[in-house]
Parts: sequence; C-alpha cells; structure tokens
Amino acid sequence: MSQDFSQRMNELPEGWLQAMGVTITLATQDEVRAELRVGTEHLQGYGIVHGGVHCGLIESLASIGAALFAMPRGQHVVGLENNTSFIRAVRAGAKLKAVSTPITRGRRTQVWEARVLDEKDQVVATGRVRLLCIENDQALAGEQVQGVLHPGT
Amino acid sequence: MSQDFSQRMNELPEGWLQAMGVTITLATQDEVRAELRVGTEHLQGYGIVHGGVHCGLIESLASIGAALFAMPRGQHVVGLENNTSFIRAVRAGAKLKAVSTPITRGRRTQVWEARVLDEKDQVVATGRVRLLCIENDQALAGEQVQGVLHPGT
Amino acid sequence: MSQDFSQRMNELPEGWLQAMGVTITLATQDEVRAELRVGTEHLQGYGIVHGGVHCGLIESLASIGAALFAMPRGQHVVGLENNTSFIRAVRAGAKLKAVSTPITRGRRTQVWEARVLDEKDQVVATGRVRLLCIENDQALAGEQVQGVLHPGT
Amino acid sequence: MSQDFSQRMNELPEGWLQAMGVTITLATQDEVRAELRVGTEHLQGYGIVHGGVHCGLIESLASIGAALFAMPRGQHVVGLENNTSFIRAVRAGAKLKAVSTPITRGRRTQVWEARVLDEKDQVVATGRVRLLCIENDQALAGEQVQGVLHPGT
Repeated sequence: MSQDFSQRMNELPEGWLQAMGVTITLATQDEVRAELRVGTEHLQGYGIVHGGVHCGLIESLASIGAALFAMPRGQHVVGLENNTSFIRAVRAGAKLKAVSTPITRGRRTQVWEARVLDEKDQVVATGRVRLLCIENDQALAGEQVQGVLHPGT
Repeated sequence: MSQDFSQRMNELPEGWLQAMGVTITLATQDEVRAELRVGTEHLQGYGIVHGGVHCGLIESLASIGAALFAMPRGQHVVGLENNTSFIRAVRAGAKLKAVSTPITRGRRTQVWEARVLDEKDQVVATGRVRLLCIENDQALAGEQVQGVLHPGT
Repeated sequence: MSQDFSQRMNELPEGWLQAMGVTITLATQDEVRAELRVGTEHLQGYGIVHGGVHCGLIESLASIGAALFAMPRGQHVVGLENNTSFIRAVRAGAKLKAVSTPITRGRRTQVWEARVLDEKDQVVATGRVRLLCIENDQALAGEQVQGVLHPGT
Repeated sequence: MSQDFSQRMNELPEGWLQAMGVTITLATQDEVRAELRVGTEHLQGYGIVHGGVHCGLIESLASIGAALFAMPRGQHVVGLENNTSFIRAVRAGAKLKAVSTPITRGRRTQVWEARVLDEKDQVVATGRVRLLCIENDQALAGEQVQGVLHPGT
C-alpha cells in the first residue's frame, strides 16, 4: 500500500486548493481523492459551478498523484494538457467528491484521469491530464523546483 | 461595434471570477478580455500558477462571449468541453492577460478559443471551449436559468 | 440485453471503417467493440501507427454507440469534440482491439469514452468523444440525414 | 525561409497519408499544408466526412512540422495528445485544405494547431496536437527511430 500524503497537502498554508476550499482525502501514487463543499466562490454567472473548478480539481488530483509517483524517481512533474468534459450542472450547497487514477506512468510522461462526483455518485465532470516528468536537477520557469512534496521542504 | 458588458461582469458581488481576482476588461459577443495579478491563491504546490486557473480563465472568457452572443437570440449557454494546453510556467507577481474569440457561433453550439498571455505577450496557455446553446425556456439543473446577463437580472 | 448491430456495420460497402480495415465486433447502445490488424495503411513516417487511426477508431466506436442509443428516440448524432491521448507506440503486424462505453447519454448531448488495446490488453490510446443529438427531422449539412442505421435504409 | 520537404513526403510509397489520399503542399518547420479530395474512404455512416479524417489530418500536419523542427536538433517527435473540434459537416466531392502552425516549439515538447478548411475557406475542423521531443539515440517502441525525414533514409 503506497503512502498517504493527504495530511501534508491539507497543511499547506495557501494556494489554489486552499482558496477553493478543497480537502484532499487521499494522496498516494496510485490514487488521489478530494472533497469540496460548493460555495459562492465556485460559481459562474448562472449560479452553477464554474467549469474551471472542475478542470482545476481534475488538474490538482492528477498532478498530486503524478508528483507522488515521480518523487522517489528523482523527478517532478508539470502539467501539459487538461481536457475536461462537463456532464451535470451543480449548484451551491452541493458536496463534490473527486477521484483520480493513472492511465500510464512513464519515465517521460504520465496520464491520469479523474472524475468529479455529486452526493449521489453521479458523474459531474470527467477529464484527463497529461504531465511531463522532469529530472529534479532541471529548471522550471528559471528556478530549481522546490515543491511541498520534495525532500527538505 | 458590439456592446461592452465588462462593467456589469465586474460588479458581480461574488463568484469564481471574484475569488480568483479576475478583472474583465472587455466583454462583447465578438471578443472577451480579462486581466489577473498572480497571487498565492493561484498557485499549486511547486509555486507556479495552477493549471486550473488557466482552464478557468479560458472557460470564463469563452462562456461570457458565447452567452453575450446567445442572449439576444433568447438562448443561454452551458459549457460542454474545455481543453487547455499549458505552454509556460508563471510565478507569483506576474500579470496575466487573456483574450477569447469565437471559432463558430451556431444555433446549437458555439466554440471559442482563448489564450492567456504574460507581460511580454508570450502565450502561457491556450484552449478551446465548446458550449451548448439552450433556449431560455428550458431548464438547467432543474431550474429556469437566471443569469447576470439575462434580462431582468 | 441491447441489440447487436455489428453485422450491419460490417456489411457497409465503403467508408472510413472499410478503408482502414476495421471490423466491428459488437455494436449496441451500451457498448461498441472493434478489431484491426495493423497494416501499412495505418502507419506514419516513423513506421508506427498514425495517431489519426486511434482518434478515428475512438470516434467510430463512440459515434456508433451514440447513434444506436439515439435512433429509437428519433434522433441522430454528430460528433462535436474528440480528445485522444496516445499511450504506447504500435508497429505493423500488431492486432488492436477497441472498446467504447458511455459516460453520459442525454437528450441533447452524449459523451462516450473509448480505449484502444494491444494483444497484451495494454492501453495504446484512450479518448472521449462528445456528440450532439439532433432530431431526425432537422437537416445536417443541408440534407436530411439518412444513415445506415436508420429505418428504411 | 525554411526548407520545403513536401515533395519527399508525397513520394512515400505507403502509409496513412497515401491511404487517405492526402497531398502535402507545404512542409516546413514553420508551417505545413495539405489538400484532400473527399471520397468514399473518408465517410462515416451518415455520408459525411468521418471525424477521424479531420483528427488524422491535424495529427499529420502537426507531426510533420514538429518533426522538421526537431530534426536539425538531433530529435524526433511522438504525438502525446490530439484534441479536435468539429465545426462543419462535409460531404463527398468536397475539396479540403489544412494548415498547421506552431504554438510552442520547445526542447521537451511542442504544440501545433491546425485547421481544416473547405473550398470557401470556412473552418471545418480545428485542433491542437502536443508532441514529445525525443533524442534520436533513444528508442521508440523498442527500436531505434528511422523516419522518412531522418538523415540517411
């Protein structure tokens, strides 16, 4: 059974996950899960959950899983592509769950899929994320990578 | 020249755009633009802008443009698909701009593309959004649609 | 158990499926399957299967399933979006299988996912297709739709 | 002006481009163009061009451009992701053109977009392809890469 890093993710003092009120409930290199109570910060103009929230949830879970798989290999990951299909409209007050699992975890790239579900376990959104694996000694955006999941941080 | 609804969008008291600090700078049925100063609420664990922010910006701009085109036709829109490519990593402090234009604006569906640019006008992310056009007298998520852009609201 | 239309699909005298040597092995409104022996007509310049073959297989299976679901409802379908991830390179001589199942089958749109597998059941490609449902009395490309799966043809 | 390799592409004795009757009209590292006369081999069951043809055209053009850019750097490319939006239905007899240009051409990955146009220059389909750049001394599908565009072939 692979190690669960969810507590460390939730202790982050700031970031998109915190701004969006996302709680990571499982964070392993084989599966990542999260929960979210829909509030006004998640809505678009029609009063339903903004598509960017679903994309972002899917991106987060895929990235965490891929990063956890890459970490012991001396790699980190960076998202390349996110494609998300919106299946059902969701309104404020609803509780969402999301789960992500890998399709491929290679040395060069990984692909993870993720689904967002409502309280009846109906699919609300589904998507895939492609991530590039980068050796830790290579720069990202001009700096060495030092992520929350990396040794020493 | 089509009417600019950007002021009305920015006066919204709450929602994802407000939570993410996005300012709409142009909102017409032909083009939509926005700006964003990157803060901690936009970051993922490695300290760069979360992919979900780019997806969400692209989703917002496409949706606003498509809604403005649909409105005088007695329609509203709902996002079906969002695919976003991440091109360059962006760190806190950066100022982002985004612009969206239509690829097709049909009676049944619309497709808008959008690009997120940094201060040097380099492409940071790019994507397309497919939206379904729905007659206003048809329900969405079990309720009649009453959006901020709709007559009487 | 929903009716299997695979024989009728394979009897088509011409079309992309025939040009690509695809055999439909199951065609129901709940699941669609196909097989393909990789020949030179499927290859790109490096000698591996062209990505368009995977996209096309995924498109075919999703479209057949969605059309079969739409048919008894007096609807036909048209593809809106196809996103496909390439997972493993495949060379000539390999035998590929593909299977597609629905994610959502609504009155307005459907989403089907599909996977292409090699002889070891390893995922070679995976994708999703979004399709628009259109009432049969509405025109497509300027003509009434008369598909191979429609009554009277 | 970058070198045009279109003649070499069209002299290929076999492959998907030949099976689909595609003529490459420009092949440089900055832009790739192709033409296609729609025949029965491009059609799906409703008698319109199969979505896989559009995906495949977009995949081809993006891949050729990316490969030409990668070649002088001692790299080849492999497609990771293809997302294609279908805009207009096309029937047999129509003449299609396609054009692809780069969005980013990095050392690790490239992104190219492409559009398929009809005779009135209306957009018929549009998409993006993400490609991974691989050093030529690294294996693909268990063999050294020897493509039609590589030195010595």
